[in-house]
Amino acid sequence: MKITCNKNELTNALQIVARAVATKPQTPILSGIYLRAEGTTLELQATNYEIGLVARIEADIEEPGELTVGGRYFQEVVRKLPGENVKLACTADEKIVHIESAMAKFTLLSMNAAEFPTIQPLEGNLDFAIKDNILRDLIKKTVFACSTDEARPVFTGCSLEVTENKVTMAATNTHRLSVKSETFDQSIGNIKVIIPSRILQELLHNMSSDIPTDVKISCSYNQISFSFDNLYMTSRLIEGQFPNYRGVIPPDFATHVKTDTAAFAAAVDRISLIARAGVYNTIKLEFADNQIHITSNNPEIGNAEEYIPAEIDGPDIAIAFNAQYIIDVLKNIDSKTCRIGLNQPLSPASIQEEDDDSFVYIVTPVRTNH
Amino acid sequence: MKITCNKNELTNALQIVARAVATKPQTPILSGIYLRAEGTTLELQATNYEIGLVARIEADIEEPGELTVGGRYFQEVVRKLPGENVKLACTADEKIVHIESAMAKFTLLSMNAAEFPTIQPLEGNLDFAIKDNILRDLIKKTVFACSTDEARPVFTGCSLEVTENKVTMAATNTHRLSVKSETFDQSIGNIKVIIPSRILQELLHNMSSDIPTDVKISCSYNQISFSFDNLYMTSRLIEGQFPNYRGVIPPDFATHVKTDTAAFAAAVDRISLIARAGVYNTIKLEFADNQIHITSNNPEIGNAEEYIPAEIDGPDIAIAFNAQYIIDVLKNIDSKTCRIGLNQPLSPASIQEEDDDSFVYIVTPVRTNH
Repeated sequence: MKITCNKNELTNALQIVARAVATKPQTPILSGIYLRAEGTTLELQATNYEIGLVARIEADIEEPGELTVGGRYFQEVVRKLPGENVKLACTADEKIVHIESAMAKFTLLSMNAAEFPTIQPLEGNLDFAIKDNILRDLIKKTVFACSTDEARPVFTGCSLEVTENKVTMAATNTHRLSVKSETFDQSIGNIKVIIPSRILQELLHNMSSDIPTDVKISCSYNQISFSFDNLYMTSRLIEGQFPNYRGVIPPDFATHVKTDTAAFAAAVDRISLIARAGVYNTIKLEFADNQIHITSNNPEIGNAEEYIPAEIDGPDIAIAFNAQYIIDVLKNIDSKTCRIGLNQPLSPASIQEEDDDSFVYIVTPVRTNH
Repeated sequence: MKITCNKNELTNALQIVARAVATKPQTPILSGIYLRAEGTTLELQATNYEIGLVARIEADIEEPGELTVGGRYFQEVVRKLPGENVKLACTADEKIVHIESAMAKFTLLSMNAAEFPTIQPLEGNLDFAIKDNILRDLIKKTVFACSTDEARPVFTGCSLEVTENKVTMAATNTHRLSVKSETFDQSIGNIKVIIPSRILQELLHNMSSDIPTDVKISCSYNQISFSFDNLYMTSRLIEGQFPNYRGVIPPDFATHVKTDTAAFAAAVDRISLIARAGVYNTIKLEFADNQIHITSNNPEIGNAEEYIPAEIDGPDIAIAFNAQYIIDVLKNIDSKTCRIGLNQPLSPASIQEEDDDSFVYIVTPVRTNH
C-alpha cells in the first residue's frame, strides 16, 4: 500500500472511527485501526465487536493494499503532522507503516491486517432511509432515558418500531419513559428491534450536517447498520422483549400546566443543588395559584425554594421527583413553553413540548415523608 | 450580618478564594469560606494553612458581621442564582445563612465563624512592590521548572532573591534549572527565600489585568504575602537552603544555535510522541549542516525523525534530552527565535530568548546507547 491523502481529512476520519477502539480490547488486534486503499478511496475501520465504525476519504493511491496499525499512536501522530498532506506506505513483509508529512517521518509497527475482523456491509431484511435531522430528533429525545445498568440489557437501548409509515423510538429505565414518533408519507415496512444506546450516541455525534441527508438503515435479526455521508456504522442489536410501554402513558390528566421551559429548567437545576447529595435527588413541586413552588431540603446542608409563574388548569397538587429526571427531559424540549400533565401525587406525570404530541415523556414521582 | 452585593462579583471572588479550600481539609472548618462585612466591603477568606486567599468586593451592608459557610455548596449556589444581586443574612444564634436572589431562596447551615483561622495582614521585615506584568514574567519563566517531589521540599518552590536593585527568581528539579531576573532603578532591599510553587500558580492565575498594577509583597522569616487589586494572598515559605545554582550555568558554549521557537517546539512535541512511552521520554538532537535533526525511537512502537532549519555556529554535536524539559521551556519563550548553547553531549545545554540574557534555562542531557 502506498497512498497520499489530505491530513485534516485523515485526522477527522481517524477521530470518528477511533471511538470504536476499546481502551481495553478483548484481543490485541481490536486496538488497531484497519486501512484499505482501493480505487480512489481510503477506508478506515475500527470495531470492538459490539459496534463497528467505517469512514472513507479520498486518496491518491499509488499502490492499493491494506494495513492495520495501533489506533492510539497512529491517531496521535497523524493529528500532529506538520504538512497539508500525508503519505502512507506499507509493505507486507516489513511489518512497518511509513508515515511522511512535510519534513516529518514516522514509522509505526504494523499489526497483521489479515487478523482484523473487517466490517462487511450488512445484508438486512429491512432497508429504509430517514433524513438525518429526523433521525437525530428521534434519538436525541429518547436515548438520554436509557438505563446504564448492564444487568438488564433491554433497558440499555432504544426500542425502534417501524409500523407501515410510522417510526417510533422509545427508551426507559423503568422510572421514566421517553417516546418520540414520526410519520412518513409512505409505508417503510415493519420491524421492532432494540438498538444499543452506544451506537445511537455515535450517530448523534456524527450526524451534524446542516443540509438534511438520507441515512440508509439496514436491519437484520441481530444487526443494524447506518450509512450516510462517508460513514458506515454497524451495531449488534439487543436481544429480548422491550416492555409494552404504551400502557404506562396515562390517557388523560387532571391538572394541566404550561410554563417557560428555560425558566423551569434553570430553577429545577438550582433548587436541586441542595438535593443532589441525597440518595434520590428529590425536589418537591407544588402547583397552585398559577405558580410552581419548587423546594428541596437536606438536613445536613440546608434548603432551597423558588417560585416560577405557570398557567395551571385543574386541581392543585404537590408532587416530588428525582430532579435529574426533570432536568434531562427539559434539555431535550425544543419549544419555548412546555406542558406538564399531572394526576395524583404518586401517579406518573407527563412532560411534553408545547404543540407536539409526537414526543411524550413520562416520569414516576418519588414518595416523600414531608 | 445582613448585606446585598452583586452576584457576578461574589461569584468571581468565591472562585478565587475557593482554590484554597482543601478537598480533604485537615479540620472541618477549613472546608469553609469565611465572610466578613464591614463598612462597604465584604471580605472573603479561605485557607488550607499553607496558603491563604482573601478577596474583597463592594457590598451594601445593612448589618455588619461575619460568618463561615461550607465552601463547596456556597460557591455552587451563588453561581447558579438567578438575579443580578444577592442578599446574604445570618444571625449568630440561628446557625443558618440565608441567601436570596430574585425568586430563589436558599438556606445553608453555617459553621462557627469564631473557629475559622482568619488571615491576618502579614507584618514583614521587607516590603516592596513589583508591577504585576514583571512579577508574572518572573514566575511564568521559572515555576514550571519546580519539582513535584515533596520528599525534597526546597525543589518544590522558586527561590526569590532580592539584592539591592535586582530581583532573581529560580527553580530547579536538579535535572533542569530556570532563572529569570529583573533590574530596577532603585534598591529594593535584600532577601533570599523559597516560595512554594502553589502560591505562585495562584498569583499567575489571578494577575491578569491589562493595565500594569503594583503588587505589594511583604516577607517575614517564614511567610510571604502578595497584595493587588482586591486580593490578598499569603503563603508559608519553604525552609532550607536553595542550592547555589549559579555554578551550574556554563560560562560559555562551543556551539551556538538559533532556530524558530514555534517550529522547534512543534517538532519536538511531534517527535516525542514515540518517546513518551519510554521511561526518560528521550529525543535525540543532531546539530549539523544548519539543521537540527530530531529523532526518537521505541522498539515497541516505531520511530520518528524530522529536520528543522537552524543557524549553527561551532562544532557539530549530537545530544539527547528528556523531550518534556525542552517542550516546557519553549512554551515560555516569548521571542520568535530561540538560542541554544551546547558544549559536549553530556554537558548541560542552555536555551534562551533571542536577545535577552535575563532569562536562562539549563538542561542536563540524557545518556543514550545509540
